[in-house]
Amino acid sequence: MRIPILTFMISAMALAQTPLPVADAGRLESMHGKTVMLFTPHPDDDTFCCAGTLYKLAQNGNRIHIVIYTNDDKGSYDPDMTSERLARIRMHEEEEACRVIGIAKDSILLLQYHDGMLEYANPRDLVEQVTGLIRKVRPDVVLSVDPGTDYVRWHKTDHRMAANNTMDAIRAAEWRLYFPNQGLHDGLEPWRVPEEYYYYAGKDANYFVNIDDVVEIKLKAASAHVSQFSPAIEKYRADWDPAALEKLKAELRQIGKRDGHYVEAFRRATGFNEE
Amino acid sequence: MRIPILTFMISAMALAQTPLPVADAGRLESMHGKTVMLFTPHPDDDTFCCAGTLYKLAQNGNRIHIVIYTNDDKGSYDPDMTSERLARIRMHEEEEACRVIGIAKDSILLLQYHDGMLEYANPRDLVEQVTGLIRKVRPDVVLSVDPGTDYVRWHKTDHRMAANNTMDAIRAAEWRLYFPNQGLHDGLEPWRVPEEYYYYAGKDANYFVNIDDVVEIKLKAASAHVSQFSPAIEKYRADWDPAALEKLKAELRQIGKRDGHYVEAFRRATGFNEE
Amino acid sequence: MRIPILTFMISAMALAQTPLPVADAGRLESMHGKTVMLFTPHPDDDTFCCAGTLYKLAQNGNRIHIVIYTNDDKGSYDPDMTSERLARIRMHEEEEACRVIGIAKDSILLLQYHDGMLEYANPRDLVEQVTGLIRKVRPDVVLSVDPGTDYVRWHKTDHRMAANNTMDAIRAAEWRLYFPNQGLHDGLEPWRVPEEYYYYAGKDANYFVNIDDVVEIKLKAASAHVSQFSPAIEKYRADWDPAALEKLKAELRQIGKRDGHYVEAFRRATGFNEE
Amino acid sequence: MRIPILTFMISAMALAQTPLPVADAGRLESMHGKTVMLFTPHPDDDTFCCAGTLYKLAQNGNRIHIVIYTNDDKGSYDPDMTSERLARIRMHEEEEACRVIGIAKDSILLLQYHDGMLEYANPRDLVEQVTGLIRKVRPDVVLSVDPGTDYVRWHKTDHRMAANNTMDAIRAAEWRLYFPNQGLHDGLEPWRVPEEYYYYAGKDANYFVNIDDVVEIKLKAASAHVSQFSPAIEKYRADWDPAALEKLKAELRQIGKRDGHYVEAFRRATGFNEE
Amino acid sequence: MRIPILTFMISAMALAQTPLPVADAGRLESMHGKTVMLFTPHPDDDTFCCAGTLYKLAQNGNRIHIVIYTNDDKGSYDPDMTSERLARIRMHEEEEACRVIGIAKDSILLLQYHDGMLEYANPRDLVEQVTGLIRKVRPDVVLSVDPGTDYVRWHKTDHRMAANNTMDAIRAAEWRLYFPNQGLHDGLEPWRVPEEYYYYAGKDANYFVNIDDVVEIKLKAASAHVSQFSPAIEKYRADWDPAALEKLKAELRQIGKRDGHYVEAFRRATGFNEE
Amino acid sequence: MRIPILTFMISAMALAQTPLPVADAGRLESMHGKTVMLFTPHPDDDTFCCAGTLYKLAQNGNRIHIVIYTNDDKGSYDPDMTSERLARIRMHEEEEACRVIGIAKDSILLLQYHDGMLEYANPRDLVEQVTGLIRKVRPDVVLSVDPGTDYVRWHKTDHRMAANNTMDAIRAAEWRLYFPNQGLHDGLEPWRVPEEYYYYAGKDANYFVNIDDVVEIKLKAASAHVSQFSPAIEKYRADWDPAALEKLKAELRQIGKRDGHYVEAFRRATGFNEE
Repeated sequence: MRIPILTFMISAMALAQTPLPVADAGRLESMHGKTVMLFTPHPDDDTFCCAGTLYKLAQNGNRIHIVIYTNDDKGSYDPDMTSERLARIRMHEEEEACRVIGIAKDSILLLQYHDGMLEYANPRDLVEQVTGLIRKVRPDVVLSVDPGTDYVRWHKTDHRMAANNTMDAIRAAEWRLYFPNQGLHDGLEPWRVPEEYYYYAGKDANYFVNIDDVVEIKLKAASAHVSQFSPAIEKYRADWDPAALEKLKAELRQIGKRDGHYVEAFRRATGFNEE
Repeated sequence: MRIPILTFMISAMALAQTPLPVADAGRLESMHGKTVMLFTPHPDDDTFCCAGTLYKLAQNGNRIHIVIYTNDDKGSYDPDMTSERLARIRMHEEEEACRVIGIAKDSILLLQYHDGMLEYANPRDLVEQVTGLIRKVRPDVVLSVDPGTDYVRWHKTDHRMAANNTMDAIRAAEWRLYFPNQGLHDGLEPWRVPEEYYYYAGKDANYFVNIDDVVEIKLKAASAHVSQFSPAIEKYRADWDPAALEKLKAELRQIGKRDGHYVEAFRRATGFNEE
Repeated sequence: MRIPILTFMISAMALAQTPLPVADAGRLESMHGKTVMLFTPHPDDDTFCCAGTLYKLAQNGNRIHIVIYTNDDKGSYDPDMTSERLARIRMHEEEEACRVIGIAKDSILLLQYHDGMLEYANPRDLVEQVTGLIRKVRPDVVLSVDPGTDYVRWHKTDHRMAANNTMDAIRAAEWRLYFPNQGLHDGLEPWRVPEEYYYYAGKDANYFVNIDDVVEIKLKAASAHVSQFSPAIEKYRADWDPAALEKLKAELRQIGKRDGHYVEAFRRATGFNEE
Repeated sequence: MRIPILTFMISAMALAQTPLPVADAGRLESMHGKTVMLFTPHPDDDTFCCAGTLYKLAQNGNRIHIVIYTNDDKGSYDPDMTSERLARIRMHEEEEACRVIGIAKDSILLLQYHDGMLEYANPRDLVEQVTGLIRKVRPDVVLSVDPGTDYVRWHKTDHRMAANNTMDAIRAAEWRLYFPNQGLHDGLEPWRVPEEYYYYAGKDANYFVNIDDVVEIKLKAASAHVSQFSPAIEKYRADWDPAALEKLKAELRQIGKRDGHYVEAFRRATGFNEE
Repeated sequence: MRIPILTFMISAMALAQTPLPVADAGRLESMHGKTVMLFTPHPDDDTFCCAGTLYKLAQNGNRIHIVIYTNDDKGSYDPDMTSERLARIRMHEEEEACRVIGIAKDSILLLQYHDGMLEYANPRDLVEQVTGLIRKVRPDVVLSVDPGTDYVRWHKTDHRMAANNTMDAIRAAEWRLYFPNQGLHDGLEPWRVPEEYYYYAGKDANYFVNIDDVVEIKLKAASAHVSQFSPAIEKYRADWDPAALEKLKAELRQIGKRDGHYVEAFRRATGFNEE
Repeated sequence: MRIPILTFMISAMALAQTPLPVADAGRLESMHGKTVMLFTPHPDDDTFCCAGTLYKLAQNGNRIHIVIYTNDDKGSYDPDMTSERLARIRMHEEEEACRVIGIAKDSILLLQYHDGMLEYANPRDLVEQVTGLIRKVRPDVVLSVDPGTDYVRWHKTDHRMAANNTMDAIRAAEWRLYFPNQGLHDGLEPWRVPEEYYYYAGKDANYFVNIDDVVEIKLKAASAHVSQFSPAIEKYRADWDPAALEKLKAELRQIGKRDGHYVEAFRRATGFNEE
């Protein structure tokens, strides 16, 4: 889904109302040697909202797992595009964006729901599936899309479903009596996720990662999603016209530049969605 | 559904916090020769929220299509009423209200879900159905019920489902790869809705149409919904007792009269629910 | 579900921003000889949010019916616990808590959905079932969990489903044409609930019951839910270690103590969720 | 559903290919003091297929429980009929038919699904509901509609669903680990149905009850279903024109009279559908 | 679905065990000026099972309506084929086959379910949709796929669903109280289908149409389905290699030639699936 | 599910009506070096129906994959049994039975549906899941439960669902356009299963494997399912009382011994369920 990108960029890079506190050892971007699990509705939301933070996490030697709910196989105006081909393109773009920020291809798991159709998946099965993934990866930190009030309007379909489902799976993962088959037959143990950072949090954001030093890397990662932007969204081409690329980057730099800092905004929560 | 009418009237006619800007050529109510598509959960929400605006749009020579999700066949206290009869009454009342504001009977399409049961329709099929309608009508403007945060509490069942579904269909209509059978077998082309006005937007309203000059026409249209008010809601009769009608109108005039102007309030958005 | 208890205690006992008006004859806690119906997602939300109010209502000779949606059979870390045993423990704890506040065992109805699975029940059937209960009990007042905007994030699964479902059933109960089989075969008449008090209302709370005089009874009722707290949540034991119990109570007293008063907070509405 | 009555009468009264063995103490119709549970898709299938047998069972002092899946609220050509009224008529007719064969009104339980809509009920919930009924009644014998091969064509919708569902519930009722909430919260114990007699068994029938001596009582019970036959099916009237009634009875007598005996045909099975 | 064609040809053309009675005025193939409605799971089952009969019906001046459940968009081995393109090809082939047997393009209605996915459609909605079609067309005769015992094994998915659904819709169409919205809002009246001919009836076939005189026309119609056969099924081409076509026809002629006559076999029923 | 074992043993070991043809190179039991995939509703149906054949196939150096739909976690009368423990026991028994006939533990895949609940799984997802497995294993032969007419009565719930689902997946696996994500994201290619042997085929069986020489091995494998028989089904114990075991084996030997040969009976089909 392309349309809301600029809109989201604004909130994703929104400047903190109050001066950012100095980064310290307890902060997300200073973490080392941990396991991080990120959930994204489509193969691009993660880049647009978290690429700077992910790059820092990767640089710090954390293990990062990307779980993508849908294959984003609908959003092209190209009259010759097919869904199968678009899904392939979108996956390759995600792999390239991940490469830029230092995440290997085999750390990406695609759940393969179709774009715009996550809402219609069996919700109980979807929670069970993601609960199993969390119990397997046992992350120290989860990044996911916020199931919050501000974005109800926007979160319908894939976004809302991904947001609610990840949160529900975090809750279920903690208690052995949810989906006991996972322990019985697959040997998975319960896992309590200690800390979550929700993106697309709108005015509920309470945690801001300063990405001034890595904003160009983020833009490089963002521009790997060629097919999400003009002109490739109208008529697919695999590469950028250099001028068009420069124009996009200039635009993105403009949006993010407020009060002197680029940030990525999150709502931080602990345990099962508590402050 | 009758109960919340007065409540809604208040918000629907709510006065703008800030003085209304003068109407100009770019404004909704000044539009000419366009195609307008309105979605309403029941055959009365459109009247109560948009009758003044619709009248102006009709006067200006725009083509108006009304799509009604449910047949409103439950909300009567009359012990002898049946659902089939109530549905017939409600449809006739809607036709009369539309006649008052200048919309012909054959511009009304009833999707025929039962009152209070839209929530339980197959959501994927419902999006597909409305996507097809949008692709067929190809509207310049859509009016629909707001899928927004303020009204989550209220939007459960028909209202929430209608709100979300219309928004999702607007999104799907734009991309050829959603529901490709519609192109393949019915010859429908994708359509991008350029502009939406969402009613029942509560505190998110950002667009106000001054209806001072047509408020009496709106009241006349509203009073076509005889069976939604006392005494016909308790014991059906097709016409008004003149005193009861005058009392209702006086009440409605009272509610809407704030700061000197009657307005109809909307949240305006462009593209797929962007500002 | 245990984790959010402290969080909820805060909001449930939150002090009114403005001084509390003096209780008078029209207030909830002054009601006599009425029928009260409370809906709770799990057998403990009612205690944590409403025990003080319920005690007063019971003392005043009101008839109280407790309807519990789920059997809360998942939330234990005890490696030897089974879901069946946990459900039995939770039901007994609820009965004990009710005994403390003066509600008899046979006033409790358990709908028997499994913890965390209410979301996946057939929503139409669930509304029909609760509509029938309301038509049978014919309550003067309903207490239920708020389907409001603030708690969308939190209300996913059981909480949101219970909140929306109760509200929908209140609406359906009023109109004879919803679920006409209930009249036809079971002799149930429509019933309009005149007044609701929604708990877990967050910042939408508009009604506060002062429980200064009964806070110790509430704490006693709360502590009947032994298995929801440490140490019984880690390794089940039926009774409290006295020191642990005293520590919990001290903690709860701390949370609730703001501006000099303990309160239970509600959003009050009349008719079908109107102010 | 009226149309297939004559067709079914034929098979229901079909003469045994081989001479009937003499009734003895072990036979269904000789049973005394037992609990019998009959499941029927509509309030008339039981009469048309089993009235003679039921009369004998009632005479012998057995306790009989009738469970009716649907309320048969569709099958009338009367242009003024409503579904609610038809359901009421059909229930009264069933009560009258039961009175004729000696079964009291309060032994009839109506599950209240709508005619033709049982297929669309949630199948898991339906099995759970009927499993609970079996565990409560603890029948020595179950009579139900045959889920057999011959009637696949006919058993679509209500008939097939009722047939399969009853059989599945018989199986589930036996094992404590199916629907353990029924034991936990309702105190119901597992129950193994020892013996079943399936009607509408077509060529799989293996058990024939001679009803020569009670055929007139059966016809009287059948004729209680006034609204299922001409002329009341075209234009409802509560009573029979005497000539029309005599004509029907003559017709039915004709059909059943083969090889000198009237019989009711069943497929007998033991345990969970074994021979 | 291609694989079973030869298998089906055998049964479809199977010679009657007993000599065919001479065609007379009451027979299907002698009908004049009537309305015939044929339901087919895919755009080819109708040709393979009924082309000869349809040709005769068209010649006799009957109005024929073809309703196709699925668009048959899966069955190709061509590695470059897409589902959208295959659906378009299959529809064109059906139109060509219909042209050969004298049925105009605008008499074909495609319901647009995807191949192999009819089983997963909402069954209640599907019955309602087809009930509406029957009430609109008001056919004197319906041809459809048999919901019979012999073909349970084969009828899974599209075939079984189409078979059961058409039969259920025939039943519902007759009674005004099924889907009353169709009368209320669309002005459709109930319709009782007097006579049905079920194809794919296997050993339950009881009605055989002699097609000796039109077998070459049937083969021509069958060969319009180019993409269902080698070589086009492996690598699509729009036309036949003349040798391959001749080989196919020879094969088909061989299969059908038993006891000296070509026939199309049906199970005839009256009313709602009665003999 | 225990009850029908003896019933099934009878049909599974049923003697061929006609003398068995001599085994030759083309026969199932003579196959070498092939890939065999067996689907079973519960972890015991495979043993009771196919153990002799499987043993021969294993001896001949074929690769055998066992796919088990449900975990069989309901069928125990032991009042202290839990579903989790029973599932573990049943899986261990299956592993032991497989060990006896020469199939390694890691060749067994458990899909983990609960006993009696396969019917309520999402049917589309279930077909997709099994289609993926077939495309991964690419079997030369599939053994599965027969979706045939004789066993409709019995195949309700797990058996019918497993039978139909496997057959549908065999069909879908062949065509690239079914579930194209499997090719796109998982690199799976379409696979056409050349040959199937369906067990529980009743009177449709057309293929009999003589197991005279391995019947004792089959009995040993069967007796690994300790918990399915008395006394362990009433009160679980892991081992056999020697006398009870001998009694069972004697009984089984009796059942199978007809016309001088033990056989396992199948319905053989090629391609997608063709003869």
